[in-house]
Amino acid sequence: MKHRAVLAVGICLGTVIVPVLSQAQLFTPTKEQMVEYTAQNPFERFSDGRPKIPDALIERARGLSAEEVWAVLPGQGFRNQYADGFKVLHPEKKLAGRAFTVQFMPLRPDLESLINTRAKAVGIPRMNNQVAIDMLQPGDVLVVDLFGQVEGGTIVGDNLFYYIMKTTRNGGLVVDGAIRDLEGISHMEMPAYYRDAHPTPISNVVLSGINVPVRIGKATVMPGDLVFGDAEGVYFIPPALVEQVVDKADETHIHDEWTRKKFDEGKYKSSDIYGSPKDPALKREYEEYLKKRLEEIRKNNPK
Amino acid sequence: MKHRAVLAVGICLGTVIVPVLSQAQLFTPTKEQMVEYTAQNPFERFSDGRPKIPDALIERARGLSAEEVWAVLPGQGFRNQYADGFKVLHPEKKLAGRAFTVQFMPLRPDLESLINTRAKAVGIPRMNNQVAIDMLQPGDVLVVDLFGQVEGGTIVGDNLFYYIMKTTRNGGLVVDGAIRDLEGISHMEMPAYYRDAHPTPISNVVLSGINVPVRIGKATVMPGDLVFGDAEGVYFIPPALVEQVVDKADETHIHDEWTRKKFDEGKYKSSDIYGSPKDPALKREYEEYLKKRLEEIRKNNPK
Amino acid sequence: MKHRAVLAVGICLGTVIVPVLSQAQLFTPTKEQMVEYTAQNPFERFSDGRPKIPDALIERARGLSAEEVWAVLPGQGFRNQYADGFKVLHPEKKLAGRAFTVQFMPLRPDLESLINTRAKAVGIPRMNNQVAIDMLQPGDVLVVDLFGQVEGGTIVGDNLFYYIMKTTRNGGLVVDGAIRDLEGISHMEMPAYYRDAHPTPISNVVLSGINVPVRIGKATVMPGDLVFGDAEGVYFIPPALVEQVVDKADETHIHDEWTRKKFDEGKYKSSDIYGSPKDPALKREYEEYLKKRLEEIRKNNPK
Amino acid sequence: MKHRAVLAVGICLGTVIVPVLSQAQLFTPTKEQMVEYTAQNPFERFSDGRPKIPDALIERARGLSAEEVWAVLPGQGFRNQYADGFKVLHPEKKLAGRAFTVQFMPLRPDLESLINTRAKAVGIPRMNNQVAIDMLQPGDVLVVDLFGQVEGGTIVGDNLFYYIMKTTRNGGLVVDGAIRDLEGISHMEMPAYYRDAHPTPISNVVLSGINVPVRIGKATVMPGDLVFGDAEGVYFIPPALVEQVVDKADETHIHDEWTRKKFDEGKYKSSDIYGSPKDPALKREYEEYLKKRLEEIRKNNPK
Amino acid sequence: MKHRAVLAVGICLGTVIVPVLSQAQLFTPTKEQMVEYTAQNPFERFSDGRPKIPDALIERARGLSAEEVWAVLPGQGFRNQYADGFKVLHPEKKLAGRAFTVQFMPLRPDLESLINTRAKAVGIPRMNNQVAIDMLQPGDVLVVDLFGQVEGGTIVGDNLFYYIMKTTRNGGLVVDGAIRDLEGISHMEMPAYYRDAHPTPISNVVLSGINVPVRIGKATVMPGDLVFGDAEGVYFIPPALVEQVVDKADETHIHDEWTRKKFDEGKYKSSDIYGSPKDPALKREYEEYLKKRLEEIRKNNPK
Amino acid sequence: MKHRAVLAVGICLGTVIVPVLSQAQLFTPTKEQMVEYTAQNPFERFSDGRPKIPDALIERARGLSAEEVWAVLPGQGFRNQYADGFKVLHPEKKLAGRAFTVQFMPLRPDLESLINTRAKAVGIPRMNNQVAIDMLQPGDVLVVDLFGQVEGGTIVGDNLFYYIMKTTRNGGLVVDGAIRDLEGISHMEMPAYYRDAHPTPISNVVLSGINVPVRIGKATVMPGDLVFGDAEGVYFIPPALVEQVVDKADETHIHDEWTRKKFDEGKYKSSDIYGSPKDPALKREYEEYLKKRLEEIRKNNPK
Repeated sequence: MKHRAVLAVGICLGTVIVPVLSQAQLFTPTKEQMVEYTAQNPFERFSDGRPKIPDALIERARGLSAEEVWAVLPGQGFRNQYADGFKVLHPEKKLAGRAFTVQFMPLRPDLESLINTRAKAVGIPRMNNQVAIDMLQPGDVLVVDLFGQVEGGTIVGDNLFYYIMKTTRNGGLVVDGAIRDLEGISHMEMPAYYRDAHPTPISNVVLSGINVPVRIGKATVMPGDLVFGDAEGVYFIPPALVEQVVDKADETHIHDEWTRKKFDEGKYKSSDIYGSPKDPALKREYEEYLKKRLEEIRKNNPK
Repeated sequence: MKHRAVLAVGICLGTVIVPVLSQAQLFTPTKEQMVEYTAQNPFERFSDGRPKIPDALIERARGLSAEEVWAVLPGQGFRNQYADGFKVLHPEKKLAGRAFTVQFMPLRPDLESLINTRAKAVGIPRMNNQVAIDMLQPGDVLVVDLFGQVEGGTIVGDNLFYYIMKTTRNGGLVVDGAIRDLEGISHMEMPAYYRDAHPTPISNVVLSGINVPVRIGKATVMPGDLVFGDAEGVYFIPPALVEQVVDKADETHIHDEWTRKKFDEGKYKSSDIYGSPKDPALKREYEEYLKKRLEEIRKNNPK
Repeated sequence: MKHRAVLAVGICLGTVIVPVLSQAQLFTPTKEQMVEYTAQNPFERFSDGRPKIPDALIERARGLSAEEVWAVLPGQGFRNQYADGFKVLHPEKKLAGRAFTVQFMPLRPDLESLINTRAKAVGIPRMNNQVAIDMLQPGDVLVVDLFGQVEGGTIVGDNLFYYIMKTTRNGGLVVDGAIRDLEGISHMEMPAYYRDAHPTPISNVVLSGINVPVRIGKATVMPGDLVFGDAEGVYFIPPALVEQVVDKADETHIHDEWTRKKFDEGKYKSSDIYGSPKDPALKREYEEYLKKRLEEIRKNNPK
Repeated sequence: MKHRAVLAVGICLGTVIVPVLSQAQLFTPTKEQMVEYTAQNPFERFSDGRPKIPDALIERARGLSAEEVWAVLPGQGFRNQYADGFKVLHPEKKLAGRAFTVQFMPLRPDLESLINTRAKAVGIPRMNNQVAIDMLQPGDVLVVDLFGQVEGGTIVGDNLFYYIMKTTRNGGLVVDGAIRDLEGISHMEMPAYYRDAHPTPISNVVLSGINVPVRIGKATVMPGDLVFGDAEGVYFIPPALVEQVVDKADETHIHDEWTRKKFDEGKYKSSDIYGSPKDPALKREYEEYLKKRLEEIRKNNPK
Repeated sequence: MKHRAVLAVGICLGTVIVPVLSQAQLFTPTKEQMVEYTAQNPFERFSDGRPKIPDALIERARGLSAEEVWAVLPGQGFRNQYADGFKVLHPEKKLAGRAFTVQFMPLRPDLESLINTRAKAVGIPRMNNQVAIDMLQPGDVLVVDLFGQVEGGTIVGDNLFYYIMKTTRNGGLVVDGAIRDLEGISHMEMPAYYRDAHPTPISNVVLSGINVPVRIGKATVMPGDLVFGDAEGVYFIPPALVEQVVDKADETHIHDEWTRKKFDEGKYKSSDIYGSPKDPALKREYEEYLKKRLEEIRKNNPK
Repeated sequence: MKHRAVLAVGICLGTVIVPVLSQAQLFTPTKEQMVEYTAQNPFERFSDGRPKIPDALIERARGLSAEEVWAVLPGQGFRNQYADGFKVLHPEKKLAGRAFTVQFMPLRPDLESLINTRAKAVGIPRMNNQVAIDMLQPGDVLVVDLFGQVEGGTIVGDNLFYYIMKTTRNGGLVVDGAIRDLEGISHMEMPAYYRDAHPTPISNVVLSGINVPVRIGKATVMPGDLVFGDAEGVYFIPPALVEQVVDKADETHIHDEWTRKKFDEGKYKSSDIYGSPKDPALKREYEEYLKKRLEEIRKNNPK
């Protein structure tokens, strides 16, 4: 949509230059646009402007649960950042990484022709899923809006899934659409969330945007969001709220520890202890426990 | 997305100038972008670049059926231009007009703040559904992507529906979302296609694009498409194919006339006459009938 | 499936001979098989063995309601003869006629090739929906098992619908699949029950049987069944039970008359009168009313 | 549940005494309990304690739309009072009346035996739908929780529907379940909301409560609520809020009048006039119009 | 609903007295009412009147399968005691315990206010899920009617799930609604059946009854029922039928043993052996085997 | 349907003769008919005419994935041979075997009486699921069309499942319907695909055909098809295409090996290597690798 910006993305595993993609793509933002979209980002950015949540925070996020995200986001006005109803490849694994978004639309030849004409002008022979996949970075989660399409909505099979796993270093995949080669993929370790598996290759769609805001279920995802998934579903957390979420989660973990220790003693009704202790002495005991444990944890997780 | 273009849209019912909307909107195209999106348009354009299928063709399109559109589009590679599953306000009325598209996304405060900051910079106090509605032209059909949301996905109630009816001169509405005030709306004559009615006002969404390509069901709609609807569903026809569709439909109408006349004679099995007559004499009879009737029709519909 | 029988069906509107169809069709029964399938039929038969419920009974059946059929069938062990969930073309019209059944299966080329080879051997160029439609008789209801397929499951458009209407003299259509040209069809008077309308022509299926037992929803339909439909759904009544159903319905109609007359008097609670009057005097009154009215009705409907 | 209270309900059309039903019923409240349930009711009560919204208010409520109810209820903390997804018998008619609630549960013989033993003890031979129906009063709407059951969940057929229409004087029916004899019922004028029609009689359920709080969809309905329905769905309005709702609706009607008059002038964009006029002169004009029209209306609707 | 009874429930893990809950709750039964509801119970009762199926029978029930329950219940007129469509936490574990039922309704402020006023009057600050949870006993299964609500319908998260597991000694949970903290819960051993997991805390509902008859899917559950679950779904078995069910299951287990032994011999068609052996010698062999094995089993399971 | 053929099926585990079943069954084919149905079969046949894909090919098919089948079938015109949406008993196991098909229809007493009369005439006391099960051969997969019925649509419980496992030597089961005794079945090793589990025994259906073409989802299955299933779904492959499918899959396996080896080197973008290498040197490298590996594989799998 913008005609002059040059997007020079260093590809992690090779030396190839991805050319001026914002010229080639219908909705792909320039670096200035990306910065404007994500103005509240408190962290560094990739060379294309996408927010780069620090690796250490992503690692801490792996200890979250969906409930701990929920404890912060709606209170900050972010009520639509959760998507569920997925099939989950490894429900016992947590997903945590930076959103790399891709948008598809139902194929129409005039739109496809426009997009491929633009692509050719910058040296990309044909705009397809691999153009986006080849731009992935370590720590990325590929987030794909395929508007729920299953037949022909298969973003990857086992070979490209393997490539993504290698390139993102086990980042992950969230697709509002399908995957193929489920049998082969099920032996790979990368977390993945998908609507269904289907044997058809991707078809009858056109790639309309890379790293644009996309819709997954009833959530809007921005490039650079922290993507967090557990057995229940997936959360998309704006970079500006990530630290608050993981800090609050530390307290929740300690609260859970203490609560269950008390339940194990077998002397209390649930309402004596939970949500918060009613007895002043217990309350004090809890607060001291919280303080001590937080200090221990924070020592191990220096900011 | 583009920062310099000025979009001066003459509003039909007043004298107000819509300011530089492509600066204010996330995905709203400049005139140059609009022309590029719809490069195959054979007709004139509005001042913002949107294709303007001639009124006469729109009137002829009102005689179409969905099957007659289907008879042309897939053969030209356009297999996804049909959407159904709507509630239809007046199934006995045909819908025909030019697509004016609007896209919404699930609300997130950072995105909304970005959009409203941009809007204010060009003099629009708040970006909402009325900004788009105030841009409608006679002959337009408002096509709204609200990603199927019903509660809070109500694009208009009866007052704004009334305004659209007046402004578009009975153009029409297609919303992948909801309407409210169904009772009041049901007394108005404008054709409308919607997923459901709900008493909530529009909420929890953000307007992310005006006259951008949008998804309605499994169809991609471009601004300026001919929107055609009957009791079955809605077709979105690229301007470049409109003439071919209505010409082909003339033949189909004549074929139907002749076929039923023959069936009324009671002398034939269905397969003697339909799809096409098998007997050479009948075939000749049909071809002469077709030629004569086409001439009569074309006299009344000069190009 | 049988190799020698010759099925000479006189076609009502023409003089063409339908050739040995039971040789051509995968599951089409011979006359002997048809008689065996429908051994309990108490009425005459068509020349191909299909039961021919008398026209007078069909006319009386038009006065039924679905509840009156239900009042008899389950008690006779027929618990699965009802199908609903259809779109109903003219909900205010009653459907009543003799089942002419057609079965389709998902296309596979080896099956299609087998069927068309057999068809050609008896002079039918290609086995398709019109082969069945050309066999319809006055009073028939075309009952089509298209296993719920909508896209490509369109048994007829408006031209063939018109033909069926003329040939069956407003018999009717029940399709566990779709129709096309809904707009055109909606102006025709014949009752029709269908899952949905779609613009595609029939495709990706193969005609596998004519006048075989078929499944419609969770009901098994035999050729020659009385097909009865009202605004709720469709009943398939074995010929042997038709008389019992319409006789019982006469009593129900009289019971309704009397019950509402009593309710109109405003002197009774519902339970005084309905299901049956509790007061002995009222009971006697009702029984006399029933007897008198039955005599009047039977005079007009001599068996 | 309570053992001594005597519920003497005068039945409108007869002189029969409904015996001590709260003894017979599992959950049927005594008069004291009913008053406690509905303590905020500002109006008179029936002899069994059920709130009796005045007839005049009910008549005014017939002019409401679902949106006008929504404009008041959520702001008062009542966010769950709306139910939709019904089939609507006469979508062009408004439903307005006092809730008379009935609750059913899936049949289990021990529960049924308990209920019928209690019923017999107070002279009711068998507890069934007619026990409740015989208690209906003019102006009542029968609200039935049949937990969505369609087969066997048919609260009435055409005879009892007719009785309800006569007894409640066109009050109405809302059933989270089914009706039977749709064909016969469709000729009667009383508004009705139901999930589906089915030919089976009511069966496999047990009547567990009369005039208890019930669930309809995701709404809780209390006996004596104002039940309001239009083409969209049904609202259950607590008596304490009815006056506020209809008063606010008067203003909305006037606002609609004025808005459309302005739109008809063709001089304004929608946002100049709607939601509220922006120009101070227009604002004044509207306020004067509102005042004048309110006075006219209030003259005709004295409190 | 009743004003005098005092419900003194000994809480297993503490010494706190649950006050007169039947005064506080809308539908909570008194001891007399509980006894009346469950009059056919052949076993002892808890101090609040709830039937107490003996521990030994519950242990035997853990060897059941859903089919073995089905083999007895419908024949006794209990056709609606089965619910399925749940997500199952540990499908490989069997659920067996005594039903402790809780009913919720959609929130309306007048109802909530009534309930909390009553609760305060007996010393409960606020009526919520923990009031019920604190009443659980060893061997109980918490059965919760949340009318299928998922968002906001989350009866417990991992802390309260842990408390229930400890208090009921691995009893179990069946909720026609949701749970939260699935990730944490999935590491705990207690069997649980739920519609879905969601990150929201419980909200927008009001607790309307404890140990009242509730609806789970299409089943009515009474307090004190034996709740049995396997990988297929959940059965609710009235105390009076428990012994018959487990006795009959012993025979089924022996029949399965013998049948498979015979199949392993490889000399028989399935119909020679199953449902029952046709050959008189085999029949005798089986009957002797049954008798011998029953004796062995009964020795280990003295009544 | 045919009256003279004698179907002498040698039962694998016993010596019993299955009598003239094609006389007994509504749609069961004679040997001549079976040969005609499956005329393109390149392999040997069973004594009843059913194609017998060689054991060695079935073993090779166990290495397939659904995608590899898809790579061949649609290109040969077989676009409907895939069914999914099943619950899968052992998703980690592959299903491969010869289709033995069974068709059921909703029960109607006249049809059942006809079928059982025929059955008795040839010595079968009652036509039921065990008649079909007793005909199974080693390597068979039982494919059952129960039109999606779950309650009462339970083709087998654990005893008959065990029998099938023994008789077919772990062949498999695909049922468009249900199973019962899921708990018991889940410990058995045979692959199975079913819509759901339910405790009811099979009922309210009638067995209408053995080894006839059946519909499973949107696929037509012929007796003797290769049934292949993995974690995604089930494919039905005509015998004539089996060899082509497994040969092509060998190439795909090699291509996968090479592609991942290259990805592991970390020097390439995905599009350098996949779908096919773009660099001529890499292309050559791949072709040599393919040739060498194919030779190795073919040595181990001599035709």
